[in-house]
Amino acid sequence: MTRLKVASKSNPNKVAGAIAGVIKDEGKVEIVSIGAGALNQAVKAIAISRGFTAPCGIDLVCKIGFIDLEIDGNEKTGIIIIVDGIK
Amino acid sequence: MTRLKVASKSNPNKVAGAIAGVIKDEGKVEIVSIGAGALNQAVKAIAISRGFTAPCGIDLVCKIGFIDLEIDGNEKTGIIIIVDGIK
Repeated sequence: MTRLKVASKSNPNKVAGAIAGVIKDEGKVEIVSIGAGALNQAVKAIAISRGFTAPCGIDLVCKIGFIDLEIDGNEKTGIIIIVDGIK
Repeated sequence: MTRLKVASKSNPNKVAGAIAGVIKDEGKVEIVSIGAGALNQAVKAIAISRGFTAPCGIDLVCKIGFIDLEIDGNEKTGIIIIVDGIK
């Protein structure tokens, strides 16, 4: 599954476009973030992308979980949101 | 639908218990937050609550959107997460 990494400096509108693109091509996408600022951008992007996929008759539903990621040799706990496009 | 308001100082474990309780009783719940810190606690709580509902054969799926809320006479934009329990 395609994985998009979102940072606190990511632009939610651009991430939303990327989400919508992957959903239209592959039907689902993983969004990964570490920290409150990054998660905030990720969640805003998902909300925005519902507006991008809705005209194609696709709504977005999410499953939320924790994920362990290795960043520069350190293990960090992030949030993974699996976004599914449903018709 | 029952609405839970989550703040940046909310305890994710306690919110997770509240989510699981409402899901078992009513099947769905709305989670509302304003700001990155509050959203972070809300999302962590949803991830934790999947562990509380899973033994009952219930997984949680979410729809994410924006919501306008009036706080002390000022309009603020928050995030609403509608959590659905699915068997």
